[in-house]
Amino acid sequence: MAQQKAIAGFSKWSADEKLNWLKDTFGLPEPLVRDLQSHRHQDPDMQEMYEEFSENTVSNFFIPFGLAPNFLVNGKWYVVPMAIEESSVVAAASHAAKFWSAHGGFTAVVDDPVKVGQVHFIWTGAKAFIADLFSRTREALVAAMEPVTASMKKRGGGIKAIRLVDKTGEMENYYQLHVDFRTAEAMGANFINTVLEALAGKWKALVQEEAAAKNATGTLEINMAILSNYTPESLVKVSVETGVSALGIFDPDLSGKEFAEKFVRAVEIARADPYRAVTHNKGIFNGMDGVVIATGNDFRAVEACGHAYAARDGQYRGLSSASLHDDIFRFELEVPMSVGTVGGLTSGHPLARATLKILQEPTAAELMMIIGAAGLANNFSAVRSLITSGIQKGHMKMHLTNILRQLGATDAQKQAAVAYFMDKTVSYADVRKFISG
Amino acid sequence: MAQQKAIAGFSKWSADEKLNWLKDTFGLPEPLVRDLQSHRHQDPDMQEMYEEFSENTVSNFFIPFGLAPNFLVNGKWYVVPMAIEESSVVAAASHAAKFWSAHGGFTAVVDDPVKVGQVHFIWTGAKAFIADLFSRTREALVAAMEPVTASMKKRGGGIKAIRLVDKTGEMENYYQLHVDFRTAEAMGANFINTVLEALAGKWKALVQEEAAAKNATGTLEINMAILSNYTPESLVKVSVETGVSALGIFDPDLSGKEFAEKFVRAVEIARADPYRAVTHNKGIFNGMDGVVIATGNDFRAVEACGHAYAARDGQYRGLSSASLHDDIFRFELEVPMSVGTVGGLTSGHPLARATLKILQEPTAAELMMIIGAAGLANNFSAVRSLITSGIQKGHMKMHLTNILRQLGATDAQKQAAVAYFMDKTVSYADVRKFISG
Repeated sequence: MAQQKAIAGFSKWSADEKLNWLKDTFGLPEPLVRDLQSHRHQDPDMQEMYEEFSENTVSNFFIPFGLAPNFLVNGKWYVVPMAIEESSVVAAASHAAKFWSAHGGFTAVVDDPVKVGQVHFIWTGAKAFIADLFSRTREALVAAMEPVTASMKKRGGGIKAIRLVDKTGEMENYYQLHVDFRTAEAMGANFINTVLEALAGKWKALVQEEAAAKNATGTLEINMAILSNYTPESLVKVSVETGVSALGIFDPDLSGKEFAEKFVRAVEIARADPYRAVTHNKGIFNGMDGVVIATGNDFRAVEACGHAYAARDGQYRGLSSASLHDDIFRFELEVPMSVGTVGGLTSGHPLARATLKILQEPTAAELMMIIGAAGLANNFSAVRSLITSGIQKGHMKMHLTNILRQLGATDAQKQAAVAYFMDKTVSYADVRKFISG
Repeated sequence: MAQQKAIAGFSKWSADEKLNWLKDTFGLPEPLVRDLQSHRHQDPDMQEMYEEFSENTVSNFFIPFGLAPNFLVNGKWYVVPMAIEESSVVAAASHAAKFWSAHGGFTAVVDDPVKVGQVHFIWTGAKAFIADLFSRTREALVAAMEPVTASMKKRGGGIKAIRLVDKTGEMENYYQLHVDFRTAEAMGANFINTVLEALAGKWKALVQEEAAAKNATGTLEINMAILSNYTPESLVKVSVETGVSALGIFDPDLSGKEFAEKFVRAVEIARADPYRAVTHNKGIFNGMDGVVIATGNDFRAVEACGHAYAARDGQYRGLSSASLHDDIFRFELEVPMSVGTVGGLTSGHPLARATLKILQEPTAAELMMIIGAAGLANNFSAVRSLITSGIQKGHMKMHLTNILRQLGATDAQKQAAVAYFMDKTVSYADVRKFISG
């Protein structure tokens, strides 16, 4: 049973025709076919909607949708929905949020959420020719975009700035039109790309007309026109702060001040060492992505932007920082992102709608603050565990629970196993041996 | 209706008690409560299992689960399941896969998939003291881990190498034990962290004994012991190659060679310009993450590793490369990752089990190749669109479909709208106006 050559027409088959073909061709067992079928939504209209989000859909992948309560951000309480398949993430967020809610909560600010788009082009003529043309036509270029920007302008967005960038130092004859946008409460990808493609066409026409009129030599190729997911100015800064005495509760062997000192060292290690930085930031994104996904935003865009920002000074570093001055402990996260609260899946996905309602219909800037707070909360819990009991204590308990479930253990067996493995390393083989004997 | 203070005991409430509280406290409307409830699995046992994956769960977030057929990787056919909420990703993967299957398919290799872990510690005494101790006890340290490594060694994994790293140039008194692991078909996080925590304890004891015996000054703090998600040696390289004549089909205005030249320039732009690199790589991760999620692997880990690798030479760059020599076009992706095909959610999540069966139960290395091929396929389709028709043509069609659905348009209205908006910019307001009259 195996495929021998390319198949045609696959996208036209129904979901069950696709599954039957998988059964015949790759031996997909009947129970797994039934699992795939049972993960469709029972309401056919809603299932059809999910199928229209993507292509060749046969089912839905379930990501547990949980709630992290007690987030106090800029004085306002939030219960933060998180869609995340990894154990301990929601618990870690909740614990940190509750702790910090008793110490002033999270303070968050968002800089001007500027979005970026680029027209990448190759011009083989003189640089002065296009530089002069651009300076004379810049305003006309923006004005010519009016038909596609009018609606966004009414909502407070539009083209903020446009400049010609000489990239010939990096690549022969390579230039950009670099455009800054504001997109109000939307992430704005469709808007930005529509403007950029129109702008590219207009710029090409202008250059060709001018070259013909002045008998200038040179050819212009629009290589591509596309938004950038890198938005380093669209920054959220989230911080927490407390006197060290509050930190004495985390480890019986560490005073609040000792805990703070050890914590600051751990955060500094993540700034100094790229191997540690990657995992440190991964823990931040555990929290951030949970909220990004739950609100119907695009986590690939948020990840790419944040990690590139982590490497902005030439070395990949941790995104958070911590300090201790005069017995005041401060912990802070600074991360750029582009997210929206209207448009796309934020409005189309039923659970994203529920999430935004639970978050009290935030603006895009408020959502950035909540996402940042979730990232900082998870980072706090992870570093706290690492510098005290270690993370395996909690993980092993989860690991044991999962294995016991897979083995179909009874409640009595579960209790006995939890007691037995309290101080032991958990492995599937050992747990099976314990249960069966 | 708003929360006034921190709540306690939230995690002990049932899912519906949590939702009722949200209804009362944040005004979550009844239809959204029903949406949340209807996204639970209808089989209570299976729903309970999803709830155990995470904490405070009240529902499941649905991600469309689709199939990208016709992936020919190292001569073997795959249908690649992808869990992805973004439109066009599965279609883009499928189109590229089918095209390349007629031109030799994807060639993929995996280097030695070495995993990394670190014991981060502060030592205030002489460097020579610990360097000497480490060189004398290195083998004993590894041998002392035997109880926790024995089972993994049977499966071909274990500790591969361990070294002492002097990081005092970056931070005062900061050193590491840097450990390389092999983890067979598992991602290995639990195994690695268990070993590292044991290793940290053993190392601390050795240093303290030795210091006492030799009356040496200095204190040792184990700051943390934790795996690194940065695994630059665990690389997959995926490539496609064809004579340029095959590339003439993509644009009526570009010969195969012109298409190849323009494509190579677009890929070089993504290597030269960080703003473009971020979005270029985001498109690669669209494909990769679809497979990573569908197989129950951790996309935050894969993202963090890949993006840090993109910045390894001091500038954030595109992860793929393209070349044209003697009319042979070659396109290649090189990206590190750490994934598994046993353990964790790969075995526990029903749809991950189905995915691995559909992928013909790959080894971890084979899975890396499939993930890499999906990344390269999506990158190919994205760059192809960008340098030819632009991406808005396809996106706008999707955008229109979504708006028409939200407006509850009839089939006749849908057809009329598709024809009308063929050459126009799609906006919600304009579509509503068109439909209503």
